[in-house]
Amino acid sequence: MPTIRILTENDLRKVIALDLDAIDCVENAFLALATRDVRMPPILRLDIDDHNGEVDVKTAYVPGLDSFAIKISPGFFDNPKLGLPSVNGLMNLFSAKTGLLEAVLLDNGYLTDIRTAAAGGVAARHLARADASHAAIFGTGVQARLQLTALTRIRPVKTATIWGRDIAKAEKTARDLSRDLGIAVAATDDGKSACENADIIVTTTPAREPIVQADWVAPGTHVTAMGSDAEHKNEIDPALFARADLYVCDNTAQCRILGELHHAIDAGLADAQSRQTELGQVIAGSAKGRSDARQITYCDLTGTGVQDTAIATLARQRCDASDAGTEIVS
Amino acid sequence: MPTIRILTENDLRKVIALDLDAIDCVENAFLALATRDVRMPPILRLDIDDHNGEVDVKTAYVPGLDSFAIKISPGFFDNPKLGLPSVNGLMNLFSAKTGLLEAVLLDNGYLTDIRTAAAGGVAARHLARADASHAAIFGTGVQARLQLTALTRIRPVKTATIWGRDIAKAEKTARDLSRDLGIAVAATDDGKSACENADIIVTTTPAREPIVQADWVAPGTHVTAMGSDAEHKNEIDPALFARADLYVCDNTAQCRILGELHHAIDAGLADAQSRQTELGQVIAGSAKGRSDARQITYCDLTGTGVQDTAIATLARQRCDASDAGTEIVS
Repeated sequence: MPTIRILTENDLRKVIALDLDAIDCVENAFLALATRDVRMPPILRLDIDDHNGEVDVKTAYVPGLDSFAIKISPGFFDNPKLGLPSVNGLMNLFSAKTGLLEAVLLDNGYLTDIRTAAAGGVAARHLARADASHAAIFGTGVQARLQLTALTRIRPVKTATIWGRDIAKAEKTARDLSRDLGIAVAATDDGKSACENADIIVTTTPAREPIVQADWVAPGTHVTAMGSDAEHKNEIDPALFARADLYVCDNTAQCRILGELHHAIDAGLADAQSRQTELGQVIAGSAKGRSDARQITYCDLTGTGVQDTAIATLARQRCDASDAGTEIVS
Repeated sequence: MPTIRILTENDLRKVIALDLDAIDCVENAFLALATRDVRMPPILRLDIDDHNGEVDVKTAYVPGLDSFAIKISPGFFDNPKLGLPSVNGLMNLFSAKTGLLEAVLLDNGYLTDIRTAAAGGVAARHLARADASHAAIFGTGVQARLQLTALTRIRPVKTATIWGRDIAKAEKTARDLSRDLGIAVAATDDGKSACENADIIVTTTPAREPIVQADWVAPGTHVTAMGSDAEHKNEIDPALFARADLYVCDNTAQCRILGELHHAIDAGLADAQSRQTELGQVIAGSAKGRSDARQITYCDLTGTGVQDTAIATLARQRCDASDAGTEIVS
């Protein structure tokens, strides 16, 4: 009978943080997506409209990794009324050789948060100017905090601005980040002014209408949009697709449906059939990244199963090494 | 922090058996599929050709049930060489109201086996003659055993024939079933003779070419084909689609791709667009079942997420009642 390791969020927080290891782990996942025979089926999506809920299931098999994850992310948007977080979930980790369940990672979305923010770090590493020192973050939630944290691991970010519709929330997030990261962080509810002097702009919201206009983005800026992971979400003015010197996505097939690319296609600015430059190709060197300090670069992240498989495999290895969790025989 | 119940295969075997409760549970699931606003997304399928493996993920939300399951079924067909079973897997059970994980059912495929065989029982209840007394089962594996068991719960089956390519395996299965069910069970490797005098024929194999010819099926017979759950599988001569008086499937969309219907469409015998009669409609009375003892009825089962949600919800309720399993706080 197989032994299965059950890992709690607490176990996982002890072994995985948003550090260079996590960023490298996610970078390697994107590299594999571009260079190896990765299998990444379309996302399974279950909508539970009765309770304002949706569930995404993501997975990928990465040749060379011993395990693959199946990640289940429920988002139930009435939960805050019940005092519960909207987003939860877990990852199941299986042997890639036998399909046997190896571990259940009860992360409540923590590993997703880390691998999502790490992708922002990877994008900045390959697309933002090396001297990028000021960041603008749109949004005030967990990803706003983590994306800025990831940027500070990759670029010499010394100042930042947090944009929020609710200035009080933006101020609170700015205060927390200033304290945690030891940099100057301001708050604003004005999108245009948030973009001024920004070397890197990261959008992290569930917006359904653009919150960043194309002409707010100055030459030399890198933009990462990571909030849109559903058909109806849209953070960036589609015109940025045309204005940017380089558009890069995590996965063309997903971004066509779920990402900012979807809206650029709808606006007639992007071709619906063409494969776009993907982050893994830039990492692999088979596509060009930033080649000029005056370029506008634009990265569209919808979140991929390879990131889940990569972070879950790393977490499990570390938990095995420290003998964390509970073993169940079944 | 939520509390999650971890249930082992042993816990689950104690509370769920292939009895009338399980058959009724699965019947209610099909009824819901026909009469309620069930959400059942297409199956997520991950192929791991490097290791001769495939993984199916199924789910469904059934209004009125407090929970929904996400069922993960890996099948790795080189496992027997390693002394491991080919098919494994687990179910994750979530609150339909909040999306919070409630239970992890480490069933190693046991609940899938039960809900699959229970569907055979439901099909026989609505489509086989009330006096059906002789069954022919194609296949010698777990489902061959369970499908015959389910038939004995539903119809006055007194004799059966097990067909296998490997007569030694067929004889072993026949001996075991004769002992376990207390009925006379013969074995054969001749498909045509297996079908003689059969009131019910159930096929349970991974065959890629028909193992039952249409003209072997006599008037009055009910046929359930449950082996085909992938594009390349095919147990029944497509001509049976035309020969049968009534064709019923578990889910038209799935059977068009994965079931016997797929091959009837390819043969030009079934329309690719039409919705076929579904088992839930027959249960609900909105479509006719068997109406004459001379009819040939034919049921095509690919396995549906509603069955998983139904059996997992029942198992969890019973485990809660008996306080089975291990509680993990995460």
